[in-house]
Amino acid sequence: MTTKSKIAPDLLERLVRSVGREHVVEGAEELDWAGRSACGTFNGRADLLVRPGSTAELSEVVRVCVDGRMPMVPQGGNTGLAGGATPFGTGGEVVISLSRMRALRQLDIENATITVEAGLTLSEVRTYADRAGLLYPVGLGSEGSCQIGGNIATNAGGTQVLRYGNVRPQVLGLEVVLPDGRIWDGLRSLRKDSAGYDMKQIFIGSEGTLGFITAAVLRLQPRPSDVAAAFVAAPNPAAALKLLSAARGRLGEAVTAFELMRREAIDLTLAVRPELRMPIEHLHDWYVLVEVAGQGDPGGLEPELEAVLASALEEGLIVDAALARSNAQRLAMWELREWKAEAQKAAGPGVKHDVSVPVSSIPRFLAEADAALENALPGIRHFAFGHLGDGNIHYNPIAPAGWTAVDLDPHRARINEIVHDIVARFGGSISAEHGIGRLRSDELRRRKSEVEYDMMRAIKGTFDPFGLMNPGKVVA
Amino acid sequence: MTTKSKIAPDLLERLVRSVGREHVVEGAEELDWAGRSACGTFNGRADLLVRPGSTAELSEVVRVCVDGRMPMVPQGGNTGLAGGATPFGTGGEVVISLSRMRALRQLDIENATITVEAGLTLSEVRTYADRAGLLYPVGLGSEGSCQIGGNIATNAGGTQVLRYGNVRPQVLGLEVVLPDGRIWDGLRSLRKDSAGYDMKQIFIGSEGTLGFITAAVLRLQPRPSDVAAAFVAAPNPAAALKLLSAARGRLGEAVTAFELMRREAIDLTLAVRPELRMPIEHLHDWYVLVEVAGQGDPGGLEPELEAVLASALEEGLIVDAALARSNAQRLAMWELREWKAEAQKAAGPGVKHDVSVPVSSIPRFLAEADAALENALPGIRHFAFGHLGDGNIHYNPIAPAGWTAVDLDPHRARINEIVHDIVARFGGSISAEHGIGRLRSDELRRRKSEVEYDMMRAIKGTFDPFGLMNPGKVVA
Repeated sequence: MTTKSKIAPDLLERLVRSVGREHVVEGAEELDWAGRSACGTFNGRADLLVRPGSTAELSEVVRVCVDGRMPMVPQGGNTGLAGGATPFGTGGEVVISLSRMRALRQLDIENATITVEAGLTLSEVRTYADRAGLLYPVGLGSEGSCQIGGNIATNAGGTQVLRYGNVRPQVLGLEVVLPDGRIWDGLRSLRKDSAGYDMKQIFIGSEGTLGFITAAVLRLQPRPSDVAAAFVAAPNPAAALKLLSAARGRLGEAVTAFELMRREAIDLTLAVRPELRMPIEHLHDWYVLVEVAGQGDPGGLEPELEAVLASALEEGLIVDAALARSNAQRLAMWELREWKAEAQKAAGPGVKHDVSVPVSSIPRFLAEADAALENALPGIRHFAFGHLGDGNIHYNPIAPAGWTAVDLDPHRARINEIVHDIVARFGGSISAEHGIGRLRSDELRRRKSEVEYDMMRAIKGTFDPFGLMNPGKVVA
Repeated sequence: MTTKSKIAPDLLERLVRSVGREHVVEGAEELDWAGRSACGTFNGRADLLVRPGSTAELSEVVRVCVDGRMPMVPQGGNTGLAGGATPFGTGGEVVISLSRMRALRQLDIENATITVEAGLTLSEVRTYADRAGLLYPVGLGSEGSCQIGGNIATNAGGTQVLRYGNVRPQVLGLEVVLPDGRIWDGLRSLRKDSAGYDMKQIFIGSEGTLGFITAAVLRLQPRPSDVAAAFVAAPNPAAALKLLSAARGRLGEAVTAFELMRREAIDLTLAVRPELRMPIEHLHDWYVLVEVAGQGDPGGLEPELEAVLASALEEGLIVDAALARSNAQRLAMWELREWKAEAQKAAGPGVKHDVSVPVSSIPRFLAEADAALENALPGIRHFAFGHLGDGNIHYNPIAPAGWTAVDLDPHRARINEIVHDIVARFGGSISAEHGIGRLRSDELRRRKSEVEYDMMRAIKGTFDPFGLMNPGKVVA
């Protein structure tokens, strides 16, 4: 520990007594690292990084920060795409990392629940569940480094929301350190509980602005024993939507993923990953990756999916389709879905949107947004993919060919405005699964109704009267 | 309208202007009716009954009540079992009925959502969904009279929670009149929305203490095309639990209901409904009604369920089983499940508990509660049934044979204390699905941790600073 911190020495000493000298970090390198989001978009060096090893230690740390009126930035894997876990670097901030709190507290197979501390990565939680013969049904690209506390704080989404929902319905109980340092033990493992207000709902999705999530009880699911997938070409999003209805009508909850990709997104993926093979000829404008999973004997779902696709072909809802005939083929299909971020980056600067609209409005949303952008910025390249079954599209137009970020910068706000105005007209959301963080907090204020924003502010003021919990994020 | 109300004439006149003279009700008969819960347990005559016909009218009514500092009791079907919609009758209360707000605002088949006003009954909502080829997957005994607003306000449960969850996950959007009369339009139809705090969660399950739910967007599900059921005898609850794991392992989410009934509950059901036939010989201590449903061809699930039961028989998890070979047989099995309230009433006075514990703790909970009650009150008769798959048991011991209510009354508090103490030891809930209302608000205060109760109180104070929304219910 060096002594260049601007934090008062008595407070520093109390922090050291709470968590141990090696976990009160002032080194520039570590602070820089903690101040940079994994996606590279957000930066800001805090004055201090504190790493409590237990809920009790965190509680003490929070009390010290409150006494010193020091803003606290809770941090997990810092993989968020809205900067919710990244400090602003404006001075005085303390990053409080949950990454040392990594205990598996309980695994109750008959109750199908797992109790974990916030610092475990998503993939560790999934592995614990898997070893018990169960499934934790949240899957994210960053699962090797994102932490479960951050997943809960952002109500993360992913590719299996269609079947299992976001993180919210997985959470049965929470342990939280409140902004005044008190510990709330809400670690109940109950499927049903109507005894009073369901306080955990307040913290899920609050992005660290109302307290620190330190541990959670998560629901586990039966692990599917059978899975089938297909890569499909559809004439347009409306037809893809009808395929979704048909698949759900026939296969119900077995439909686990329904991922839409437009032609341009596939083009650019193949450009950065030329070794990937299209399972069908690449002649079409829209593709869908459908996955179904169930508990029956392996191989049972494939003919069911095939039957759905055969009818869809006959009805003109799709124009081509390939079933995955092996697990390797299925994973290869997922590769075509997964490399979107890299494909996009390689293609040039762009503007990302994580929007949702009612599922039934997706075709009109896409048509209107495409037309409006082409009109506003001729030559703009379309790039969109996402979770059609959830109404959630990552609508990320890329600047005209040859443009640099400097060329695009003056147009960013306008592009954003155009897309989000159309989203608003369809009653949609400007953040379907990435959260608000620091990225969209100003826009949230502009776009929420006064009544709703007032309620949010009231909640914030009630829980965090000094405004020390992740200030500047989500709500002013 | 007579003029015997204690409400100031100018306020009465404003109410009349807001909703029309015929919907400001002061008649003793109507007030008595509105003051009596459907279950007959709760009574209390309000000073006034007001029936707004629209959200705008309700908003005006609330402003009048706030100006007059008149406590408001929101009321739907008044079918709740905790008295949450029933006035205390201590003077000054205004019952505000939502029953005139009955519009189907929207049915979006491709988005699989329905937008309804609070006063529609559950069965009307189910019928609308059904006519569109979809399912609203909440089923309650009172569905013909309970209202959808009340279902949401109490986060109601029912027999299909195992598969679909309580009401909470069905709700995508809400319209609420706040305790100050402002209208919050949160009627979004989105599957995913991480834009700010999820304010609707605050109102779901708040039992009318934070605002009036006037309309909601509800998620609909594919309607199952295949259903199978079996009536099973198990040697004990632990074995029944293993059967549940086996069934979910093989059939996953297809397992829709898993209802446990103890011998005594069957005995008393057969006593009041002697025409009912047991599908298997009535020689056993524990029975389970299992139902599975899916999207496949009719008849496809029956052999699957049969296979699960055959293995369970072999492993000794069950001792007898009958599959429903027709829809009539299936409905007859449900009749054995449904008549519990009547059976119980006919058998004599009892003490009802709507408790939940972790599913894995159900066998130990039952064993400990049984033993403790036998010890405290020799001759007490066991009566229990419930949703084993949700860990939710209606544990309703009946007084020794021949006792009257007067005999039992001095023991009620002690019985309640014994049962709920054991529930607490298992980390359970004193209200799994019926809510707190006025029935358990004192007990909630005693049993919640100080931190949790403080948070509840803070939320209440933030939304309802004058304490006019359903005062005395849920939280003090």
